[in-house]
Amino acid sequence: MTDSRALYTDLHHAVRDAAPLTHCLTNSVVQEITANVLLAVGASPAMVSHPDESGEFAAVADAVLVNVGNPDPPVLDAMRSAVDAASAKGAPWVLDPVAVGGLGVRTRFAVELLAKKPAVIRANASEVRNLHSAYAGTTAAGGRGVESTDDPESAVDAARELARITGGVVAVSGATDIIVSEGRITRITAGDPLMALVIGTGCSLGAVTAAYCAAGNDPHDAAAAAHVAFSGAATMAAAVAAGPGSFRGAWLDALYHGADSVTALTRIEDER
Amino acid sequence: MTDSRALYTDLHHAVRDAAPLTHCLTNSVVQEITANVLLAVGASPAMVSHPDESGEFAAVADAVLVNVGNPDPPVLDAMRSAVDAASAKGAPWVLDPVAVGGLGVRTRFAVELLAKKPAVIRANASEVRNLHSAYAGTTAAGGRGVESTDDPESAVDAARELARITGGVVAVSGATDIIVSEGRITRITAGDPLMALVIGTGCSLGAVTAAYCAAGNDPHDAAAAAHVAFSGAATMAAAVAAGPGSFRGAWLDALYHGADSVTALTRIEDER
Amino acid sequence: MTDSRALYTDLHHAVRDAAPLTHCLTNSVVQEITANVLLAVGASPAMVSHPDESGEFAAVADAVLVNVGNPDPPVLDAMRSAVDAASAKGAPWVLDPVAVGGLGVRTRFAVELLAKKPAVIRANASEVRNLHSAYAGTTAAGGRGVESTDDPESAVDAARELARITGGVVAVSGATDIIVSEGRITRITAGDPLMALVIGTGCSLGAVTAAYCAAGNDPHDAAAAAHVAFSGAATMAAAVAAGPGSFRGAWLDALYHGADSVTALTRIEDER
Repeated sequence: MTDSRALYTDLHHAVRDAAPLTHCLTNSVVQEITANVLLAVGASPAMVSHPDESGEFAAVADAVLVNVGNPDPPVLDAMRSAVDAASAKGAPWVLDPVAVGGLGVRTRFAVELLAKKPAVIRANASEVRNLHSAYAGTTAAGGRGVESTDDPESAVDAARELARITGGVVAVSGATDIIVSEGRITRITAGDPLMALVIGTGCSLGAVTAAYCAAGNDPHDAAAAAHVAFSGAATMAAAVAAGPGSFRGAWLDALYHGADSVTALTRIEDER
Repeated sequence: MTDSRALYTDLHHAVRDAAPLTHCLTNSVVQEITANVLLAVGASPAMVSHPDESGEFAAVADAVLVNVGNPDPPVLDAMRSAVDAASAKGAPWVLDPVAVGGLGVRTRFAVELLAKKPAVIRANASEVRNLHSAYAGTTAAGGRGVESTDDPESAVDAARELARITGGVVAVSGATDIIVSEGRITRITAGDPLMALVIGTGCSLGAVTAAYCAAGNDPHDAAAAAHVAFSGAATMAAAVAAGPGSFRGAWLDALYHGADSVTALTRIEDER
Repeated sequence: MTDSRALYTDLHHAVRDAAPLTHCLTNSVVQEITANVLLAVGASPAMVSHPDESGEFAAVADAVLVNVGNPDPPVLDAMRSAVDAASAKGAPWVLDPVAVGGLGVRTRFAVELLAKKPAVIRANASEVRNLHSAYAGTTAAGGRGVESTDDPESAVDAARELARITGGVVAVSGATDIIVSEGRITRITAGDPLMALVIGTGCSLGAVTAAYCAAGNDPHDAAAAAHVAFSGAATMAAAVAAGPGSFRGAWLDALYHGADSVTALTRIEDER
């Protein structure tokens, strides 16, 4: 077991230093908070979803997020262009398979994208299990919308399989976040239940993971550090928030100020 | 005149206990606040607007909101699918006829949806009058965008007619909210003028009304309780807010904490 | 050098008195904050982007904003209809050429719109330079997404040229905002770096500029007063905010309360 605290703190600063241009193709519900979260951690957000512009823009971006929540038809083509452009230049891209499982269009699309090898898949436990089942052609007990119905530990096997298929990282979000890649598993515990009452905290974590991947060298470390930032900031915010409305602002403040403090607020277990 | 205070408080808790999955097809301006409001009152939000997924999702949802504000063309088909799926399973759905009257596409669409019998129509006074006029083939003095130009009392006759046509409930929002159904009218007074300076408070009330309908037995009681929650929370928030920016967060906090306190903050007049 | 302080304060009140109906065709990332900002300064926001409704609505609106960020294909037609309807009735419209330069669709579209003579073009320095270069058929050093890479002073020549081409005003946003029209240049200094960490502050400034144009007689004065309101409110908000999350709410509160205080918080240099 290795404690990577200093590394994670270095990564929080690396994102601020590099200000990676992070191109987010994400659902309309969470676009504003996603952009604000990226700005708070020092990244530079952009959201270009016209199918004729998305690839152009991805070619100059440092990282790409593809979140399949609420995929309007032309946006699917924009996502394909962005992923291809990111892959062509070697920029990392992150897949967030929101609510994959019961919904046909996005499930087929997320499986299609697996072949393009995302650096990180970020999702909750049921989404990870459902994505793996859809890939394998079997069926899993479905999630309930975007809310996970099960514990992150229940998705570790599926996460290992997806990590093998993509050669990348799978990050399972929950009360304890679990980051899985070939030969390594990291568990991160912090946060607060109020975070689940603010829409877009999960979706924006996908965007921040992409930004951290652009600023760091190793996608596993980057994904873990992004989760540390989120959970640690949630712990900070819960200390001052009166409810979910004030939590949202306090959490953005904590993300902004937390480079040197969030890591110490989380429990990190790293197995190799 | 009957005071239904205990019933309303029971409904605030029933929503928290049932966490109804509330499928919102709503305009892009208010999606984020709508989701946050649903989370604050204990419901589970989802927004699936792809025309090939919307019906799939509505079939597992507990309630559906159709808000015709800003209806992008493919979303109209998604709304039809969702309403049909909700009706097929007997789940309640709520119609919010935003800015109906002067705008052709949404006005024709809202009239079309009346035949599918929404459990509740939630709107401001001019929208209620305009929807009724469009249905009846006459013209009303138009509203000004989404802002109501007239008093809720001016819409009571139109609301009674719409309630007769649909067999459901019509909720007219204003300084005093008026909930109308066959043989019953309820007036709810509380709130604060700052609520009108936060975009989406009206639109998210439609979503919360849908969630309350899923958690309760009677759509009139459910609609009234949803309006009580909103107005009571606004009264709570106004006590601590410094302006519309801080009101937004304080109001979400009040919705979250208000199950046992909002009802006592409202004046409720119930006539049968 | 003329100090227009009294005029600007009059304009802050004129917007509140007239409550101009401001029709915003803007990107989905910033729709909510744009609407909230308009409400905070006393305007009435509306966002009608269906191509068959946008012209209908613009015909009753007092001002129109066209923000080309994230232009979904049908929205481009909605923008054309809205501009034509505004022009036909003599209502002012504002062009915000977000990220014009490297992205083909929006760059061609923004150049096309120049011929329709916006009352004001509002942008950052690189966008102003890129728009002028695209019009002139040359190339400029590109911006980086929506973030400006250069100083507003670097765009003064391009702004003068665009003002000559359109016969209107060009407002260049930055640490010092520069408002340019034929024979006049105004520099406004106030604000706070936190404003750049809240998404949509620039985009909503375009909407507020449109609202001020509707409430005032002279587009140069109106644009300058809108920038004074924004920067002065940012100075007020920075005094109480703990970071970008709390800044957002505090800034909206300051916009709401600031009619009599924001002007005195800014440095204004007016050359004719």
